[in-house]
Amino acid sequence: MASKVIIGVMGPGEGSTPEHNELAYELGKAIAAEGWVLLTGGRAFGVMDAAMKGAKEKDGLTIGVLPLHNQSGASSYADIKLVTGMGSIRNQINILSSNVIVVIGMAAGTASEVSLAIKADKRIIFLQQDELTYNFFRKIGSHRIVEVETVPHVLDCIKRFLSVNS
Amino acid sequence: MASKVIIGVMGPGEGSTPEHNELAYELGKAIAAEGWVLLTGGRAFGVMDAAMKGAKEKDGLTIGVLPLHNQSGASSYADIKLVTGMGSIRNQINILSSNVIVVIGMAAGTASEVSLAIKADKRIIFLQQDELTYNFFRKIGSHRIVEVETVPHVLDCIKRFLSVNS
Amino acid sequence: MASKVIIGVMGPGEGSTPEHNELAYELGKAIAAEGWVLLTGGRAFGVMDAAMKGAKEKDGLTIGVLPLHNQSGASSYADIKLVTGMGSIRNQINILSSNVIVVIGMAAGTASEVSLAIKADKRIIFLQQDELTYNFFRKIGSHRIVEVETVPHVLDCIKRFLSVNS
Amino acid sequence: MASKVIIGVMGPGEGSTPEHNELAYELGKAIAAEGWVLLTGGRAFGVMDAAMKGAKEKDGLTIGVLPLHNQSGASSYADIKLVTGMGSIRNQINILSSNVIVVIGMAAGTASEVSLAIKADKRIIFLQQDELTYNFFRKIGSHRIVEVETVPHVLDCIKRFLSVNS
Repeated sequence: MASKVIIGVMGPGEGSTPEHNELAYELGKAIAAEGWVLLTGGRAFGVMDAAMKGAKEKDGLTIGVLPLHNQSGASSYADIKLVTGMGSIRNQINILSSNVIVVIGMAAGTASEVSLAIKADKRIIFLQQDELTYNFFRKIGSHRIVEVETVPHVLDCIKRFLSVNS
Repeated sequence: MASKVIIGVMGPGEGSTPEHNELAYELGKAIAAEGWVLLTGGRAFGVMDAAMKGAKEKDGLTIGVLPLHNQSGASSYADIKLVTGMGSIRNQINILSSNVIVVIGMAAGTASEVSLAIKADKRIIFLQQDELTYNFFRKIGSHRIVEVETVPHVLDCIKRFLSVNS
Repeated sequence: MASKVIIGVMGPGEGSTPEHNELAYELGKAIAAEGWVLLTGGRAFGVMDAAMKGAKEKDGLTIGVLPLHNQSGASSYADIKLVTGMGSIRNQINILSSNVIVVIGMAAGTASEVSLAIKADKRIIFLQQDELTYNFFRKIGSHRIVEVETVPHVLDCIKRFLSVNS
Repeated sequence: MASKVIIGVMGPGEGSTPEHNELAYELGKAIAAEGWVLLTGGRAFGVMDAAMKGAKEKDGLTIGVLPLHNQSGASSYADIKLVTGMGSIRNQINILSSNVIVVIGMAAGTASEVSLAIKADKRIIFLQQDELTYNFFRKIGSHRIVEVETVPHVLDCIKRFLSVNS
């Protein structure tokens, strides 16, 4: 019995931009349309919330891995709310549980996730990332990171990575 | 949008008995038949494995919260494999994420889960528990624990707890 | 270069009794007098606080492994305050870092520590424990637990365990 | 009773350079000479090991926060070996427990620590950091990071930060 494919979408919460949220929303729809499970940090803000909103519009399954000891601050678009009580280190669960990780935008929490993903040897896709961020993470983990500009390119990359790993 | 109800089933892995596994299997079927999500420690042994096997026979959704840094040792009946890399402390996620916790059998890992559940003020159902275990946990957290003898009684208790919390 | 011997003292915080606190205080003094480092859960209550107070009277070194994201609620007798931000699961650090674990009193948090200690195959000393608690933990991890009635007997046990492990 | 000042020194393990190790060794000596406790990730490699070696030459107290479930791979210069069994997420303890964090070199694990330190609003000192790394972290957490070129400048910065916080 095959377990479900989980795609993690990571990015800023409160500090996210409308452009990044729109991109996350489109990505969430596309992930759900492929039948993949969407996993995020689960909070009702920014990239996480927007991606899960998109996934729910296409009847996808969404998992939110929450930092607090209860469901406060959780996105209403998370079907499955995992309550960790672990604060920022719940990020490790996001990384280790996702088959592929897509990153939109950048902030300290997101940077910790990309760093942990490099350490865990996970495949990472940067979507419309700024050059400084891309260059920094290429320097500390180059062969694990690809950079793309559109949601369809993200899907192509994910499919390629999944076919290699299975 | 309502998030899914998650029922956690906890119990021994390698040290489980055939009787406890059979009980877990029946409980897993019953949980799935109610439309609830089943969450366990995710390993391919004992109570966790048997409960998820039961749930899959009724087309339920199953979540396995795994202790290691990868999916090794995971039950093939876990639809969603959460990889934590946290060892025994992933037990906290099991407890905090479950609306209600059902316990079958007893071992050190299970005892840590019941202890954390008492600390987190969660409702706990002991199914066919031995008297010594029941008396010990009643002593340190009495009002959170009920003891029942059959799977239908577990369902009754869960429904009662869910109606109080919603 | 030999690393320092760490003795973990575990027991209830707010729910501790004056008798248990007095016992913890005497034990803390005795541990410091032996030149061992005392490790506790670090909070300003009950067994943890009393044991560290005793150790400081004998100029011992004390480590408090704190549950919160900052030092709030920390015992003033903790020389080294480790801030984990992990809540109850910081208990795993207490257990894994201690050469030997001494338990005074019982509550849900303490029960999770004893359970994790059994799982981690650590030596555990119960000091003046009640019979129900002793019987329960003997049942799930018998060969790792000894029960003694006085502080001098605790010291004898620790020395015996240390000589076996080194 | 004042708790001890803890200075965290973070940097690459296996991938460290001889220059960074030498710098860490000098920094460790200087930290110990000030009477501060040195905290590192505790492993027998690179910046962690070199800094603790330096501290021990000046009779400092050293704490190693280890990633595994036992002491394997620990630096022999760690007086107090904290065993977390948490892998990379033990990095959060390093960050939250340190009054000030000094970073030498850069790798994925170190990047996760700097990211967590920014999130936790900790003061961070980069010692002889490359420009790309400095620019990236300034971008996501500018006001928390200072960059210096020599060990004496690190000491000046630490003293300034400690006086502000106390």
